Amino acid sequence: MTEIKNFFYILILFSPHLLNSVYSAYYYKCQESYCIKEEITNNTTDPLLSLPECNVLCLDSAGLWPKPTGNVSISNLTEINSSNFIFSPFPNSSIYNLVNKSIEIFRYQINELKPCRFFLKSTSSNLTSVNITLNISDVESNTPKIDTDENYNLTAVFDEENNVIQVTVNSATYFGARHGLETLTQLVVFDDIRNRILLPSNISISDGPKFKWRGIVLDTSRNFITPKAIKRTLKGMAASKLNTFHWHITDTASFPYVSQSRPELSEAGAYSARKVYDDQTVRDIVEYGRVRGIKVVPELDAPAHVGEGWQNTGVLTCFNWTPWGSYCNEPPCGQFDISQSEIFNYLEDIYGDMLDQFGTEIFHMGGDEININCWNNTDTMTDWMVNEKGWNLTKSGFYEAWIYFQQEAQARLWNKAGKDVPIILWSSDLTALDNVTDVLPTENYYIQVWTTADDSAIQTLLNKNYTIILSNYDALYLDCGLSSWVSTGNNWCSPYKGWQTVYDNKPSDIAGNKTSQVLGGEVALWTEQTDSSSVDVRLWPRAAALAETLWTDPSTDYSAAEERMLLHRERLVDLGINADALEPEWCFKYQQHCPSSGVFNV
Amino acid sequence: MTEIKNFFYILILFSPHLLNSVYSAYYYKCQESYCIKEEITNNTTDPLLSLPECNVLCLDSAGLWPKPTGNVSISNLTEINSSNFIFSPFPNSSIYNLVNKSIEIFRYQINELKPCRFFLKSTSSNLTSVNITLNISDVESNTPKIDTDENYNLTAVFDEENNVIQVTVNSATYFGARHGLETLTQLVVFDDIRNRILLPSNISISDGPKFKWRGIVLDTSRNFITPKAIKRTLKGMAASKLNTFHWHITDTASFPYVSQSRPELSEAGAYSARKVYDDQTVRDIVEYGRVRGIKVVPELDAPAHVGEGWQNTGVLTCFNWTPWGSYCNEPPCGQFDISQSEIFNYLEDIYGDMLDQFGTEIFHMGGDEININCWNNTDTMTDWMVNEKGWNLTKSGFYEAWIYFQQEAQARLWNKAGKDVPIILWSSDLTALDNVTDVLPTENYYIQVWTTADDSAIQTLLNKNYTIILSNYDALYLDCGLSSWVSTGNNWCSPYKGWQTVYDNKPSDIAGNKTSQVLGGEVALWTEQTDSSSVDVRLWPRAAALAETLWTDPSTDYSAAEERMLLHRERLVDLGINADALEPEWCFKYQQHCPSSGVFNV
Repeated sequence: MTEIKNFFYILILFSPHLLNSVYSAYYYKCQESYCIKEEITNNTTDPLLSLPECNVLCLDSAGLWPKPTGNVSISNLTEINSSNFIFSPFPNSSIYNLVNKSIEIFRYQINELKPCRFFLKSTSSNLTSVNITLNISDVESNTPKIDTDENYNLTAVFDEENNVIQVTVNSATYFGARHGLETLTQLVVFDDIRNRILLPSNISISDGPKFKWRGIVLDTSRNFITPKAIKRTLKGMAASKLNTFHWHITDTASFPYVSQSRPELSEAGAYSARKVYDDQTVRDIVEYGRVRGIKVVPELDAPAHVGEGWQNTGVLTCFNWTPWGSYCNEPPCGQFDISQSEIFNYLEDIYGDMLDQFGTEIFHMGGDEININCWNNTDTMTDWMVNEKGWNLTKSGFYEAWIYFQQEAQARLWNKAGKDVPIILWSSDLTALDNVTDVLPTENYYIQVWTTADDSAIQTLLNKNYTIILSNYDALYLDCGLSSWVSTGNNWCSPYKGWQTVYDNKPSDIAGNKTSQVLGGEVALWTEQTDSSSVDVRLWPRAAALAETLWTDPSTDYSAAEERMLLHRERLVDLGINADALEPEWCFKYQQHCPSSGVFNV
Repeated sequence: MTEIKNFFYILILFSPHLLNSVYSAYYYKCQESYCIKEEITNNTTDPLLSLPECNVLCLDSAGLWPKPTGNVSISNLTEINSSNFIFSPFPNSSIYNLVNKSIEIFRYQINELKPCRFFLKSTSSNLTSVNITLNISDVESNTPKIDTDENYNLTAVFDEENNVIQVTVNSATYFGARHGLETLTQLVVFDDIRNRILLPSNISISDGPKFKWRGIVLDTSRNFITPKAIKRTLKGMAASKLNTFHWHITDTASFPYVSQSRPELSEAGAYSARKVYDDQTVRDIVEYGRVRGIKVVPELDAPAHVGEGWQNTGVLTCFNWTPWGSYCNEPPCGQFDISQSEIFNYLEDIYGDMLDQFGTEIFHMGGDEININCWNNTDTMTDWMVNEKGWNLTKSGFYEAWIYFQQEAQARLWNKAGKDVPIILWSSDLTALDNVTDVLPTENYYIQVWTTADDSAIQTLLNKNYTIILSNYDALYLDCGLSSWVSTGNNWCSPYKGWQTVYDNKPSDIAGNKTSQVLGGEVALWTEQTDSSSVDVRLWPRAAALAETLWTDPSTDYSAAEERMLLHRERLVDLGINADALEPEWCFKYQQHCPSSGVFNV
């Protein structure tokens, strides 16, 4: 590499505006809000902007992702001493440790985001320093909640006398301030023409999310996802201002969750003794999320989607019945036999374990994809329905059984929590019942919708006054588009959902004048065909596309976000996430030249 | 994790056949050539096989991938001292260093393939040792060539007196012996019931490939692929007995190849000074492949698919012309202006550099996707055609120009090589010419076919006596199935090609009675939407599916290979490759329960 390096190292000292040595034959120039690559010649009089500099100065909203919802004003890129970020002392309070942790993460990320660290000039003593002050009015809120105020203001002014950029983040909560630091991180740029670190010395940004619930649901049952990969996921979420990690921790295929009170379930149901989430691991992940402004919401899916782990409990039916197509949607089959009242003792114990680890803010009870044929072929269940409950064996009789289960499980959850914990359920035949609001009161239940955006069930739920969370599979299921694993052809929800589809899945297009009832949304990664090897590639940068749609509620479509999306993908890679490449790097360097409808390709 | 570990550690000492402690509640039993999971109870009298043991004893061909083509006989799994593989001294020769390197890799892989290394019992002194002897008749062939004899025999016998398993690999060449060691590696299994390392003490395998050319074409131009990721790719190839790494090293989007004689091309055309393949890197990759039985074949695609790097040479036309849809298939556009004879001087120099680094066995000249509209809009080119060459500006005139280019380029290549190096070209309008055999003599040219399996052009080429290499995009393009990057919807060759599709793409189905003219095939990974972050996930384990199709030429379809495919995917992961997950781990543990047509799901 020596020779080519030398070429790039040539000092081109031909132009009077050029005080530093130049390590490139190209520079960028802002044109129509895009950065255009230009050759450096003897006649060049433009400022020699590097691409990262140009992106901040030229792109929509300074290239930030997600795009801020309030004012963005940025100017005066200034070379800084990136080893010299000085944070004002933060008063002792219940968020003191969180703030310190965030500062540590900020410093770490600045370091990771510097490409070519080895190229950096040695720090000269007269470079501008950066002082950062966090003004947080509520110093007691130390746990991310649904209603957490995530707004922040970020300003920077240049103090010429002291040669310092004074950065201030004002926010109601730690969680707003944390977002402010993420934004600041994105404004620290590496100038690869002169090998310098720069920050705008003039910043004024006001920002806050349009939707409260911005998340990822990750399945850790079909395949085990290592705690390390989960933390990597949380890292990417924090960098993209996503705030909800919905952990679909168990399902029929495996039971990796180590219940403190019922350890026999993971002993029988984990893929191996090493593929479990024990108490310490769970608490570690919850804390890792909390520091990054992410609430970790556990899902204990029932009464379907149960199997492994429950084999010897006497409360399971249809487990591994064949042909599976008759008793469930994918192998292995398994549902609770609701006639076995012991189920609820198990559940109450597990709920207790989970509430203790995850908190009592909200709980996901799953509740999807009941197969009536399974229950109808379970003698203990049908006997009990007919003889003890007086329910018939028609659809409505089985729905009675399902309602009975949900209400009893709910009672156990609330009993254990000592309060009426809000509950999330997946949309299902249950949530489609005419009398659903009697069964699942709208003040207690959120419905997570997973059918298509145009499913009339969504309007029905909204009309019944439910608050909903969008995970419509036609845009937000990130496992689609692979080959089928149970048959020939492609998997059920093919085709692949590109970032464009994720981005353009606007809540207001789906909910219309009931958009205020949309709490937010989640991309879903079901892991039948994903494990720790591919979780990054499947999630990123597509989950970041959702992040902007829900944070910003943009009025434009994906095409206006393309350059910023490519830029944000690079940020994720710099953080150690194997985010997928969306386009040739060429398109990143020649903005708007690739889309057939691009500004510079017409 | 302590509690659950303890559970698995319980010593179950109830059965007379059980000499060691047992760390599992389950074992496996062979039934209809599949391994069935069973609970260990007080009444269990079966041998307590772990899944890895059962896979070797029960699955088709001992679970080997690719499946051997000759006899496979395996028995007597024996606990061995895995730190004590003793290789017989190998005579000094031109393959001495290769053999030693292979032994080093073997030891390393055995170590990587041991799961739960920390669980392993301390080595007891009376464990069986393994002696390995390599008998290679041709000790001079030290470079993988098209006609290299890759056959091998692998045997193991137990020497009771010395408590040693004597393993012998017989082969004509180092490259056959190397395959033998890969096979042996796959037969070393970790028994996770008793935490032991085992090897069959009775092995008799004769094996060799059905097709000579088994490869991957990787594009390193649309996005840069790090040398580290390329080596990881070669590692996976060696483990799957693929033998050809076709390196599509340059294209219009970037020119990362550092030509020793024309360094200005990568200086102008690499994405950055760090994103290049310099001389040392290229030689390092070629050597890394050679040790692993992989020939590295360079492709210098021309006269289309050129652009970045050539900007200032005067031989380029249409570069970055817009709208790109009028002048090429994807942005940026770029072709050689054939009227500029200086092209050939450039090419001859680069050919010289490449022949020196990659050898003179074979050379890929690309030659696909000429856009006539580009040439027709290049005045220097049309003037030259009409005035100097007397060719008209119809299709056939432009084909004349193309033929002229190819013949001149070929002359320069052969001149530099000092011999008639065999050439590969992609199928194109050129290879579809009626008089193609005059232009591209069948004794000098191989044609790599990329159109669909049912394209009549394939039969035409076969009838004209060409030897072909299959890369038909409807089965072997691994970049398909993502969203489009230039427009809306999915990318051009969607849907995704599952491993099943790759596996079932049988040369004999395509070539019929001309199958002997199929040299082999390559999966293709074009990297418009892939870079080092996702190259593993896209390639693996699908490239391994191709490996078996070409090595084994199986008479059965993918469904008969499913368990072995899942098993081989785990091997790739153990080697540090982010191979994609194909199914829930549950399906790996409950064999034939997942496919709706599976043996145990009927």
